[in-house]
Amino acid sequence: MPMHVIPLEGLPMVQPGDDLATLLLQSLRQAGIDLIDGDILCLAQKIVSKAEGRQIKLDSITASSKAVELGTLTDKDPRMVQLVLDESTNILRTRPGALIVRHRLGFVGANAGIDQSNVDHRGGESALLLPVDPDASAARIRAAVYGATGKHCGVIITDSHNRPWRLGTIGAAIGSAGVRVLQDHRGGHDIFGRELKVTLINRADAIATAATLLMGETTERIPAAVVRGLPPDDTADTAQLINRPLEEDLFK
Amino acid sequence: MPMHVIPLEGLPMVQPGDDLATLLLQSLRQAGIDLIDGDILCLAQKIVSKAEGRQIKLDSITASSKAVELGTLTDKDPRMVQLVLDESTNILRTRPGALIVRHRLGFVGANAGIDQSNVDHRGGESALLLPVDPDASAARIRAAVYGATGKHCGVIITDSHNRPWRLGTIGAAIGSAGVRVLQDHRGGHDIFGRELKVTLINRADAIATAATLLMGETTERIPAAVVRGLPPDDTADTAQLINRPLEEDLFK
Repeated sequence: MPMHVIPLEGLPMVQPGDDLATLLLQSLRQAGIDLIDGDILCLAQKIVSKAEGRQIKLDSITASSKAVELGTLTDKDPRMVQLVLDESTNILRTRPGALIVRHRLGFVGANAGIDQSNVDHRGGESALLLPVDPDASAARIRAAVYGATGKHCGVIITDSHNRPWRLGTIGAAIGSAGVRVLQDHRGGHDIFGRELKVTLINRADAIATAATLLMGETTERIPAAVVRGLPPDDTADTAQLINRPLEEDLFK
Repeated sequence: MPMHVIPLEGLPMVQPGDDLATLLLQSLRQAGIDLIDGDILCLAQKIVSKAEGRQIKLDSITASSKAVELGTLTDKDPRMVQLVLDESTNILRTRPGALIVRHRLGFVGANAGIDQSNVDHRGGESALLLPVDPDASAARIRAAVYGATGKHCGVIITDSHNRPWRLGTIGAAIGSAGVRVLQDHRGGHDIFGRELKVTLINRADAIATAATLLMGETTERIPAAVVRGLPPDDTADTAQLINRPLEEDLFK
């Protein structure tokens, strides 16, 4: 069965305090997209963060001496560095232009996912933090969608991640609800009857990546997409499951 | 515009020396899929390797003393380790069960992409190496598809890669032709007019990931998919472009 990735156009600019599920449902209706069971609603982190009021004015931040020091080392505004420190559990690498940390949510990336693009800087330079608990955000939106439509849909909150050895970002699922996140083929058998040893597939990141491709492909103004055609899941999985346990980190 | 990922069912088991493009075109016809300009044909590395005769009997391999030593260290058959060494330029990590190398093609991963699953072991235990030059393989198949159909399609040869900090594999483009591999938004502007600093999107890996999701989702027997709906590219890009330059490797 084919998979379809349908970009959702026409979503209004999201403001702090907006009810994102309601905005999404309105836009879906206007776009003529009727959700069906099994659809996965992929939302750019940015609109979730904005709705949740995670935009912070840099003026309100006081940089610690550590942030000032790291700011010099990495060529970054010490107040931005302070935000990164506040949002992360440890620093992995610092170089001019690069501050790689483990985010408090468990994943590794540049600048703790804090971004200044597509953020309204009127009233003072600002930065946008990731949602406090993206899995919980996804679950809330999923429940609201079910409440309004009666449809069992999955929700993935997507972000763009870099990888150590490959250029260019791909999508990542930083929050999810109602989506089987990891598909485990271990213990299964291949087409010649041989036991499969290591076949754990990251469905959530793959779905996020498919959606992110389309969001970025068409225009900066498409922060959501519907992924349709994958077998529906009944699962309590969350994106937290994706984080590789620290003791399995071969790349320290 | 939506993106569609259409799995290609009914491809026969690929044998060494098979003309893969002809097999693909036959299967597409049987499946009622008419290629159109801009379609991207995604092929699992495995069928390309098989057609190119990259299956090797372990009996034919003599393990060096280094391979024996690494085999003990990693709990692997020394002949498999020898193949990994022959296919790689350096070893990054060794642990029981894990041998992480930089492949001669430039990417980093476990066991140099050499696999023993879905390989016919009748006549002796075998392993399947990656194609010698996956970009060239993609270009050949693309030319054959154009020759037979007159359609300008892209071709991506996909593999499944692990990542350091996230569980579960996602797709990667190890070869490509006719696909814009990296999309550079740097120097562009966001929706508030602010200059975008770091927005390089890996389209090829994203397309490979979308296709791989569907290949793995439905059955082990679907080694190809058509990705439709992305804007057509006129490009000389190859998957080689994806490798991050060594001097940018922050994770050494």
